[in-house]
Amino acid sequence: MVRVGILDRWLAERVQRLVEPVAVRLELWDGSSPFAARRPPVGDLVVRDRRTLLGLVVNPELWFGETYAAGRLAIRGAVEPVVEALSRLSGPATSWRARIMAALAAPNTLRDARRNIHHYDLGNDFYQLWLDPDLVYTCAYFADPAMSLAAAQRAKLDLVCRKLRLRPGDTVVEAGCGWGALALHMARHYGVTVKAFNVSREQLGFARARAARDGLMGQVEFIDDDYRNVQGECDVFVSVGMLEHVGLRHFHSLAAVLGRTVRRHGGRGLLHFIGRDVPRPLNTWIRRRVFPGAYPPTLAEVTSRVLAPAGMSVIDVENLRLHYARTLELWSAGFAAATDEIRSTYGEQFRRTWELYLAGSQAAFATGWMQLFQVVFAPRESPPPSWTRAEPLPHVEAAA
Amino acid sequence: MVRVGILDRWLAERVQRLVEPVAVRLELWDGSSPFAARRPPVGDLVVRDRRTLLGLVVNPELWFGETYAAGRLAIRGAVEPVVEALSRLSGPATSWRARIMAALAAPNTLRDARRNIHHYDLGNDFYQLWLDPDLVYTCAYFADPAMSLAAAQRAKLDLVCRKLRLRPGDTVVEAGCGWGALALHMARHYGVTVKAFNVSREQLGFARARAARDGLMGQVEFIDDDYRNVQGECDVFVSVGMLEHVGLRHFHSLAAVLGRTVRRHGGRGLLHFIGRDVPRPLNTWIRRRVFPGAYPPTLAEVTSRVLAPAGMSVIDVENLRLHYARTLELWSAGFAAATDEIRSTYGEQFRRTWELYLAGSQAAFATGWMQLFQVVFAPRESPPPSWTRAEPLPHVEAAA
Repeated sequence: MVRVGILDRWLAERVQRLVEPVAVRLELWDGSSPFAARRPPVGDLVVRDRRTLLGLVVNPELWFGETYAAGRLAIRGAVEPVVEALSRLSGPATSWRARIMAALAAPNTLRDARRNIHHYDLGNDFYQLWLDPDLVYTCAYFADPAMSLAAAQRAKLDLVCRKLRLRPGDTVVEAGCGWGALALHMARHYGVTVKAFNVSREQLGFARARAARDGLMGQVEFIDDDYRNVQGECDVFVSVGMLEHVGLRHFHSLAAVLGRTVRRHGGRGLLHFIGRDVPRPLNTWIRRRVFPGAYPPTLAEVTSRVLAPAGMSVIDVENLRLHYARTLELWSAGFAAATDEIRSTYGEQFRRTWELYLAGSQAAFATGWMQLFQVVFAPRESPPPSWTRAEPLPHVEAAA
Repeated sequence: MVRVGILDRWLAERVQRLVEPVAVRLELWDGSSPFAARRPPVGDLVVRDRRTLLGLVVNPELWFGETYAAGRLAIRGAVEPVVEALSRLSGPATSWRARIMAALAAPNTLRDARRNIHHYDLGNDFYQLWLDPDLVYTCAYFADPAMSLAAAQRAKLDLVCRKLRLRPGDTVVEAGCGWGALALHMARHYGVTVKAFNVSREQLGFARARAARDGLMGQVEFIDDDYRNVQGECDVFVSVGMLEHVGLRHFHSLAAVLGRTVRRHGGRGLLHFIGRDVPRPLNTWIRRRVFPGAYPPTLAEVTSRVLAPAGMSVIDVENLRLHYARTLELWSAGFAAATDEIRSTYGEQFRRTWELYLAGSQAAFATGWMQLFQVVFAPRESPPPSWTRAEPLPHVEAAA
């Protein structure tokens, strides 16, 4: 074990001063702590070597995740509360930095989009270990906070359908359809026909098999293509959990797609996405290890760069960030329950990466660092899809 | 009568070509029309002299209103359908023009705000002729489209209270309180205390008298001051129909007010305002004759320049533009029913100005040229005011 020297103590004091306000205590590899805690800590950060300490000083946003995943940084106590406490430290970046970072970070050409999708191609087996049975990998809707994850995911699918006022015979385009749960729900319960786009082969295979099993092949077509290649007109455009992968630089492409596909009279759409209050790039480490090319936009960026240029009016917005915190809490619980299997199949570093990513995301939504917006829109010259937001009765109560 | 000459016919053809696509027919002072109508017109624009014709060519946005008010331009047939047809002609201005115009148009210093408020100081008698009995001069909420205006205004007041999740004992700041209807409704039905700000003396006098009559003086204080002078902390900030009078240049002042008044934990607020999909200055004539200093902002302008700098997250947005079209339809009907009284008290030019302003506004909301947004917000670090948007039962059903 390398001795803790004067330089180490000096670096450790810098880090301790940083995390002190949120009651996190630093501990070095020899068991020493740079300061006696002034109040009971939420938890301890255990730094196992000098390189880790250096990384935390130089670029904490990146090296916190890297060293945690490698086991060179540990959390004593529960992971989530410590991560949530640390997440309260961050201040908003200036807007110019956010823009530069976002521009550097998200080229997302058609080829990049294919490459960046690997997150979703990890294998259906992996996601089946801890997602709900329908494999819905986006924020759920806990109409009742005590709902199970499976019930809350179905409630979300149905909430989206009701906000869209789906009618039998409507033609729907879904951009980024995941494992197909929403497309199949819309077809089954609302009698619409769906063209669902995705560039993840693993997901598409699963979705097509489900459609065949459920006898919905006539109503739902799963298309292996990028959302930018959507052709033809539709009554309804819906995208759940894709906009955060589009990147600011490509918002004009999405605007062009909306402008040419959504029927000008009676058409409408919904964007469900992870967003921000102020422009800021996604955490460096998450972008490097988990979601390359991702950028959670502000509502202003979406309305002024996607909807307005497409000639769309905002009809309705709902912020569901606490529902995402709860969703992530349940995902983490499922993930923890599968610890042994995940470790033996994917390795400890992978497991720790995901553990931290899920805990960090939960903290971000719980603290208001990230938002979850559902935005309903309609062509400006078209009447809004409904007179009031009073919604038709849900189609899934019994399924809960 | 001045003869219609070659130059007149040439000018008239230019105007006719402009209005042709929306089936409006131009008629000159000698009864002639520059073109035979190709389809049945929605209505006729009757130009009574050469100066009017010139004005319509040079600056239609201004002179349409000016000459209509002066009776030098007439509409044959119902006013509203013709105005609505004409409103479909306008295209969005480029963003730079909107910004320059907005900057020129809305200095709104504290002194200007006092001067610009004269619209609301026309006399309570005037508004009592055609508003609902509670004198609510903002978009109503027709929970049922067949509701009376009075019921729909009470439904709006209650909708605002429910979106704000008012609880007994909450302290509320209302910026721009009109004749006090919302402040009194909140105090009476929700047990809150309200500080309501306004710079219209006429309105304040009326509001105070009502509070005294209803025994609510202990709960509601009507304050003769600008919203920028709001002091102290509150649980709830609400502003209905004031933001469109603030002007882009002063959005930072409103942000500062929100930042220092709304309690950081558990606080929340609502902005109800006339908005746009794309930045564009208000019609020149409306700005000159009806609402000096007004600017209806986009949702992006409000979220990025007011809410984000104040550290607020958007919780919920609802677009009620069709409810405003209906409100204006009922205002116009009430106004028309009082034609004789208004003409004899205020003069024909005044009456025609208001007739056109109401019809033009109805058209703007009916066609999507203007939007009506209700935005609920809360401090970023605070949990959203409710778990889902399912609302408590209204307090006014019986009052309908």
